[in-house]
Amino acid sequence: MPELRKDLLRGRWVALATDRALRPDDFPIARKNLAEEQHAKGYCPFCEGNEGDTPPEAEAFRDNGSLPDTPGWKIRVFPNKFSAFDAAAELKPRTAGIYPVMNGVGIHEVMVETPDHDRGWQDYTTEEIYHLLQMYQHRYAAVRQDPRVRYIQLYKNSGLFAGASLEHSHSQLIAFPFVPDTFGGFMSHFRETGHCLICDMLQQEIADKTRVLYEGEHFVLFCPYASRFAYEAWLVPKKHRPHFQDLPEAETKEMAQILHMYMPNMLEKLKRPAYNLLISGGTVNGAAEETAVAEHWFMEITPRMMIRSGVEVASGVYINPVGPECAAEILREGLK
Amino acid sequence: MPELRKDLLRGRWVALATDRALRPDDFPIARKNLAEEQHAKGYCPFCEGNEGDTPPEAEAFRDNGSLPDTPGWKIRVFPNKFSAFDAAAELKPRTAGIYPVMNGVGIHEVMVETPDHDRGWQDYTTEEIYHLLQMYQHRYAAVRQDPRVRYIQLYKNSGLFAGASLEHSHSQLIAFPFVPDTFGGFMSHFRETGHCLICDMLQQEIADKTRVLYEGEHFVLFCPYASRFAYEAWLVPKKHRPHFQDLPEAETKEMAQILHMYMPNMLEKLKRPAYNLLISGGTVNGAAEETAVAEHWFMEITPRMMIRSGVEVASGVYINPVGPECAAEILREGLK
Repeated sequence: MPELRKDLLRGRWVALATDRALRPDDFPIARKNLAEEQHAKGYCPFCEGNEGDTPPEAEAFRDNGSLPDTPGWKIRVFPNKFSAFDAAAELKPRTAGIYPVMNGVGIHEVMVETPDHDRGWQDYTTEEIYHLLQMYQHRYAAVRQDPRVRYIQLYKNSGLFAGASLEHSHSQLIAFPFVPDTFGGFMSHFRETGHCLICDMLQQEIADKTRVLYEGEHFVLFCPYASRFAYEAWLVPKKHRPHFQDLPEAETKEMAQILHMYMPNMLEKLKRPAYNLLISGGTVNGAAEETAVAEHWFMEITPRMMIRSGVEVASGVYINPVGPECAAEILREGLK
Repeated sequence: MPELRKDLLRGRWVALATDRALRPDDFPIARKNLAEEQHAKGYCPFCEGNEGDTPPEAEAFRDNGSLPDTPGWKIRVFPNKFSAFDAAAELKPRTAGIYPVMNGVGIHEVMVETPDHDRGWQDYTTEEIYHLLQMYQHRYAAVRQDPRVRYIQLYKNSGLFAGASLEHSHSQLIAFPFVPDTFGGFMSHFRETGHCLICDMLQQEIADKTRVLYEGEHFVLFCPYASRFAYEAWLVPKKHRPHFQDLPEAETKEMAQILHMYMPNMLEKLKRPAYNLLISGGTVNGAAEETAVAEHWFMEITPRMMIRSGVEVASGVYINPVGPECAAEILREGLK
């Protein structure tokens, strides 16, 4: 049974598989040519035609008349087969000696973005990106129905150095039974100032301009002042809303347009790095009214040009060799 | 000029190089065959005979009569040439709009562990490890003299997947002008219970035994209950002390013996993974008496079998596919 255990020193939850041990040879790093091997063999569980090799689909955008778990889909969602979370578990918080622990309750889904093994964000049309954002919104809305869920993380790993173990382009969603401590800045800023932290960041970035890559009607794309990653950018909606799910159609369309403009350009400039896309938002279910005023959903686009070194693992201090002002100069070139 | 900027959302400091941009081709990931290339060329700036290619040494253990910055050393320490910290800067905290920021004050040193390019922790004798621990203690004591320093991180990156950019075995030290927020658990546990968190952890681990790998007279080696990394182990001194520097000779000797027993065994079992060694401790200079009671130095030995994925980057929740009880069963085999 998976468990969620609290790391008391660093104040973070750890999701642990306790009933099996991945052997040293099983890790993606050890098998780093796995993607190539699979590609050479022509086999990938996410490709059209191999639907039987994944868990049954939870949702798909399909051609009219095609049946679940058969070909004919554009985007296909199913539970993650290798999850450290158990959707069926009952939430039973307890302590083990000094440590808080609970069953590894959580929903972990894979969203295969395209039936085509060789396409990715560098290739998608604006319409394809729009449909993918719609699917993110659908799944966010669906898992939010579960009353045990307190926080939903949408994310994409692309490339081994960004944590991907399969090459075929896919996104993921994990719904947690707690709000991660890492977003504590929302509430502490609100308590100190009475404002939303991200609204205040936006105001400062728009006035300052040195880190802005693009300003649209509804969104600002910029390199954040305290960038943790080299060439990191944030795509932030101007209107305060805690949940990505609630974005109106016109804004979702602009978001797709900006990503369509930015992603191929960025990936080309940085020589096709591994990267993550991250959509983070507010507390769901049983949130105090306060959190709705303090929390603002946003998207991070983080190229993974470096491996986190020991000083970062130990102290949590990030070291970034590319200041966001330098990064913005480079990333801004050729946008619109 | 490097800067330390506060990430207000996640409550962490980021050390930023603001005056140069590493180009996409300059990152170690992009140059992942660099070590092999250098090795083939027979060139490495850390090898004996190439002392002129590093900054002047701060300290070395040398053969009698050999001169600084010439051959004849066993362990050699110098400032990190590519640091994101500036030892000469003046500490000037200020704000940039809503963001706390200060000059990138810090001391960043490289400790070359051996003149021999091909040796590492899998090869060292107990005596060599003891000398290395002594050098760590010397440098900790030396940088602690600087009144601007509030926290000192000792760490080692071995292998590309652990953040190393050079192959030749070396450790590092960074002295920060602040105490990283990541160790907040020390003070919060102390305020709640009146105890040191690590003393309480030790008591629980020794009683429980399921995660203990080895218990010596002065140290316990165990897989922590909320392990962030697969096959992670902590080497923790039984006696409460905030600073590794203050470890008496007999305890330092036992520490060297345990590491000499454990490291080759672990590296062999896990098929020579990349790894970090991390020594973390307490607040230095101007610490309240309270922190000396709450903070307990310790060492982490973290194999880096996986790359941190998007969900970890965004939410700070770690996902570990190998529970510490499973890891302990494997790692315990063959120890003493």
